[in-house]
Amino acid sequence: MNSSLFSPPTPGQAWALQCTAFDTPRSDALRVQVDALVVVSSTGVIESVIARDDPRWAGERARHAATGQLRELPEGSYLLPGLIDVHVHAPQWPQMGKALDVPLADWLQRNTFPLEARYGDEAFAESVYRPLVRHLLANGTTTAMYFGTLHDGGNRVLAEQCLRQGQRALVGRVAMDEPSQCPEFYRDASAQAAIEGTEAFIGTLAGLPGNAGGLVLPVITPRFIPSCTDALLEGLGALAQRTGVHVQTHCSESDWAHQHVLERTGMTDAHALHRFGLLTRRTVVAHANFLTPEDVALMAEVGASVAHCPLSNFYFANSVFPARSGHARHMGMGLGSDISGGYSPSMFDACRHAITASYALDEGVDPDLPSAQRGRHDARIDHVFALWLATAAGGAALDLPIGRIEAGQHFDAIVVDCHAPDSNICIWPGSDSPADVLQKIIYNATRANVAQTWVQGALVHCRGAVLSNLS
Amino acid sequence: MNSSLFSPPTPGQAWALQCTAFDTPRSDALRVQVDALVVVSSTGVIESVIARDDPRWAGERARHAATGQLRELPEGSYLLPGLIDVHVHAPQWPQMGKALDVPLADWLQRNTFPLEARYGDEAFAESVYRPLVRHLLANGTTTAMYFGTLHDGGNRVLAEQCLRQGQRALVGRVAMDEPSQCPEFYRDASAQAAIEGTEAFIGTLAGLPGNAGGLVLPVITPRFIPSCTDALLEGLGALAQRTGVHVQTHCSESDWAHQHVLERTGMTDAHALHRFGLLTRRTVVAHANFLTPEDVALMAEVGASVAHCPLSNFYFANSVFPARSGHARHMGMGLGSDISGGYSPSMFDACRHAITASYALDEGVDPDLPSAQRGRHDARIDHVFALWLATAAGGAALDLPIGRIEAGQHFDAIVVDCHAPDSNICIWPGSDSPADVLQKIIYNATRANVAQTWVQGALVHCRGAVLSNLS
Ligand SMILES: [Zn+2]
Ligand SMILES: [Zn+2]
Repeated sequence: MNSSLFSPPTPGQAWALQCTAFDTPRSDALRVQVDALVVVSSTGVIESVIARDDPRWAGERARHAATGQLRELPEGSYLLPGLIDVHVHAPQWPQMGKALDVPLADWLQRNTFPLEARYGDEAFAESVYRPLVRHLLANGTTTAMYFGTLHDGGNRVLAEQCLRQGQRALVGRVAMDEPSQCPEFYRDASAQAAIEGTEAFIGTLAGLPGNAGGLVLPVITPRFIPSCTDALLEGLGALAQRTGVHVQTHCSESDWAHQHVLERTGMTDAHALHRFGLLTRRTVVAHANFLTPEDVALMAEVGASVAHCPLSNFYFANSVFPARSGHARHMGMGLGSDISGGYSPSMFDACRHAITASYALDEGVDPDLPSAQRGRHDARIDHVFALWLATAAGGAALDLPIGRIEAGQHFDAIVVDCHAPDSNICIWPGSDSPADVLQKIIYNATRANVAQTWVQGALVHCRGAVLSNLS
Repeated sequence: MNSSLFSPPTPGQAWALQCTAFDTPRSDALRVQVDALVVVSSTGVIESVIARDDPRWAGERARHAATGQLRELPEGSYLLPGLIDVHVHAPQWPQMGKALDVPLADWLQRNTFPLEARYGDEAFAESVYRPLVRHLLANGTTTAMYFGTLHDGGNRVLAEQCLRQGQRALVGRVAMDEPSQCPEFYRDASAQAAIEGTEAFIGTLAGLPGNAGGLVLPVITPRFIPSCTDALLEGLGALAQRTGVHVQTHCSESDWAHQHVLERTGMTDAHALHRFGLLTRRTVVAHANFLTPEDVALMAEVGASVAHCPLSNFYFANSVFPARSGHARHMGMGLGSDISGGYSPSMFDACRHAITASYALDEGVDPDLPSAQRGRHDARIDHVFALWLATAAGGAALDLPIGRIEAGQHFDAIVVDCHAPDSNICIWPGSDSPADVLQKIIYNATRANVAQTWVQGALVHCRGAVLSNLS
């Protein structure tokens, strides 16, 4: 036995991890697998999760121990599914946590568009995207769905960084050609140019060395309806229908955006996107606060999903997204950091903000209103729902086998160390059940608690020594 | 020069720190003192802050360098005032981040009261209060105003831990004697017993070895009006008037509490507290979401303050405290974590939740309401206001010379290291001004960024090597 020294299993061989694992197969179901054996295939897929009281447990454990391919998490460390961030603006990384005190229009035109316009310079792109991917992995984000920029080269650099550092990612070439909404220095020359640019980027990713396994996927990415002409939206919709590639955009985010689309198209965002062919099983629309009941029904029918961005919604969306009622009506959803409309790269923060936002919607906020006129009392979610949003729900939204600790899923996972040096997770062994431990993790985990991050069976981030080699 | 090795200045001698310091003398004023010299007296008081372009700067620097008493913060580290948490329930530390999905009444009767009842056991008290104080210091909380329990011994243990570990604190012996609201296993036997117990604890603290300097102060602490009889409230009010000791309680927190006091006393919490003699210049009332305009005027006139607890308000207070309008009407306030009604020990988290809550109140939350019926548009605060709440405002609320980096204030301060290993604060030197750096700190600082914590000129927490010895 190699004591507590970390030694990763030999790559390209099956291995097993003995650990207590938490995951959320449903929005209202926390699954705790105490001292289970997670068997990972040579290709990074979970072959089986063997319960401690399963008769096969001892034999499987011994088999992997004999080949030196058994590892164990120490007391105080737990396995969780990797966190899935379904809405990140990669080029906005340098302004994360900045300029949040300005109105949305100024924020876009004065801060964001000038910054995004710089990514034609691949050296600059690399100087941003390398630390971006590193920081997200360190925060436990195993999969990110990224908005890139208009630049094929800059977007390729982002994809390369994901491949090099081992992050599962979906990368979108942003398309935006409407002159009244996009500045001259940062817009597509024409709808045709944007459509061709998008198609070219799909080809770029397919040909990227090291991407044969499809760790990085392309996304058709009209910024949002106001910044795109009808011709562009139609062309991208046709491309989505023809290729089956993922789609992402913004949808009914704010009073302004919702109203603008109604006036321009005579219908809501969701229905307009559907008409353009952009609403598919692999579509993720960000925010979607102002969906009508008919929009929700349409989304559910098509199988499209919402990127719930609770933090940036407080700042820019004039309201809270009603996640619980949307879920009750069978609409898919995942959780987004919305960097840099959201200031935090941590999906644990996003979980907490999702809960807080749901309480605000449920209880209402204005003490000067009579109690009966405050709140809507159909909105509250708990920490289990929040973890589900950040894991299993995100996997379903992206149509990928990730987000749960069970056979057939990719081994995308994180190790949360409650005893980390800077931990604010304070466990009382006598009185905290495993479910209490999970609740304390969701409420206080930070990057400092993310001891290890694994994607497709590979260790892609490691803070310190937490695995015991049991061979 | 001792390179980047940390070596604290010799205790009992004046010293100087060369650093860039941020503080907020007003709610709308960020002060940036670039490369200033902070001169600290032998008793831990700031003697002067000498600007880089002040003619005295070079001489003062040389004078301290000559005696080996000059230190410097490296690039990427900044000095901020110590964070002031004006509402913490110390005995609830073991359940922080737990049981947040139950109603307030259950939370009190089933979880909280049984836990608080255990602190008659001083060994148990020490097992909780030692890590509590250590964790709060590690999070940068230099001053905490604590609710203790009913137990003189347990409360003394808390005070001893603050003294031993060097945290400035105000510790309250909780008083609660109303049989209809307090369980038999956890309530004062009578009003008289609670009043005598409170007075005894004031004596206990005055006689505590090592507390001659008054680092730990007593607080008269009726839990809240519903849990106290009139006789108890009258007695404690008389004690407050006679001794001038601080007072803390809860006030108009929720619809239920506000209504209950109205029905019982025929007046609002604030007016009832005033009638009982409990509203003074040194009173801090927690939550206070449902203050009437007359309550706010009364609070402002008396000089009493609110402990704004934005996080726990989302969970338990049915609304958001309107901090900005209260401040505009000259009411004092500070910021509280409200552990464990709030799940986070970090006052940086409290700052962020204060901002988020203010946006929710300002914008409204329910997308199904017409825009004109959503929000109140007098509520939004920014990161500067939030830092002011957690520092200068808290110092004023507690009537103590803390919370600012200027002459005459105690040197209670923290060093924030943006380059810490687990930092999510990402600075871009070319494009981030000092004010941008401060904004990024407020939005993303965690415990991992708190490199050092200083109270009364003494180093009370240190993560690593950040000071250069320039002697
Ligand atoms: Zn977005
Ligand atoms: Zn409280």
